[in-house]
Amino acid sequence: MKIVVVGASGTIGQAVIQELEKKHEIIRAGRNGQDVSVDITSVVSIKNMYEQIGKIDAVVSTTGGAHFAPITELTPELNEIGIESKLKGQINLVLLGMEYMNDGGSFTLTTGIMMDDPIPLGASAAMANGGVKAFVKSAAIEMPRGIRINSVSPNVLQESWDKYGEFFPGFEAVPASRVALAYRKSVEGAQTGQNYEVY
Amino acid sequence: MKIVVVGASGTIGQAVIQELEKKHEIIRAGRNGQDVSVDITSVVSIKNMYEQIGKIDAVVSTTGGAHFAPITELTPELNEIGIESKLKGQINLVLLGMEYMNDGGSFTLTTGIMMDDPIPLGASAAMANGGVKAFVKSAAIEMPRGIRINSVSPNVLQESWDKYGEFFPGFEAVPASRVALAYRKSVEGAQTGQNYEVY
Repeated sequence: MKIVVVGASGTIGQAVIQELEKKHEIIRAGRNGQDVSVDITSVVSIKNMYEQIGKIDAVVSTTGGAHFAPITELTPELNEIGIESKLKGQINLVLLGMEYMNDGGSFTLTTGIMMDDPIPLGASAAMANGGVKAFVKSAAIEMPRGIRINSVSPNVLQESWDKYGEFFPGFEAVPASRVALAYRKSVEGAQTGQNYEVY
Repeated sequence: MKIVVVGASGTIGQAVIQELEKKHEIIRAGRNGQDVSVDITSVVSIKNMYEQIGKIDAVVSTTGGAHFAPITELTPELNEIGIESKLKGQINLVLLGMEYMNDGGSFTLTTGIMMDDPIPLGASAAMANGGVKAFVKSAAIEMPRGIRINSVSPNVLQESWDKYGEFFPGFEAVPASRVALAYRKSVEGAQTGQNYEVY
């Protein structure tokens, strides 16, 4: 399969590529993508990416940011970051990528544990995660030409524990390699409309 | 309690007011609000609304739109309607209303059954519903001064069945009066972080 990984240089992106590259052709995309550059907050940039790549069998998105702030300090403007990036950015990868997707292909997006198991400062990220999850579940029932769509919801990563662990007290960090399996299940499997929780 | 109902002229808004007005002071808000006009897609308009109303004990949002289209015809631009209105609009009512909310007050937002039980054409609405639900669950754990936040997820309404029933085959429509009870539970009860499903 020809698979675009958006967010290829991130911790999850790298683990996904390691899991998939033995059997598939991987196109590494991202803000400074090794193969293709894309800014998912820009519709024009996403369109350009797909035009450069052409027909594909799978899109895996392991990207998308959101602002972390106490709810009392979260402004509409700061909340916009997560809307533009993790929510709209990922959904636009689907809406704009549909015509480039071969029959029976798949989209796999990324949500996150904070929507199910909230932490302080995480309301905007939770919002984006919840929006993506619900979109995936609903879009799946009317995707054309056998195209599937799923999301993966990772726990905090062992690889990020030194940096973010203090924000996740009592959480049981998971290795990125385990998270990567869920993306493989989505890409190589036959399920659709799922949100794979790797908790 | 002094309660602002945003979306007061809608079917749910009217039912909520009927349920609450015996015991509370109701301020009717909406695009052509009887007491206060507000366009929830505008930050400036929301700020103006709160400045006019002053301190409050509860905000109930029964408003917010999204575009219905097949997933193959949903463009980033059409998806933006639900983001601006049902998702961001409702969340901004919370972010901008926090300073006007009295201690122990509450916010109650509206989601919808389509995020759990998807229908064709409903992916954008589902996205908005899922984003609001996850935001509520996460925001609840760090609301200041005893302020609570919940959402209500209505099934399709009996009152709207003639208009929308064909889009919801096999759904068991509920009366708006039953949906209104969930808003009352949110406003007069003590729970927080809940999404009351009226299915």
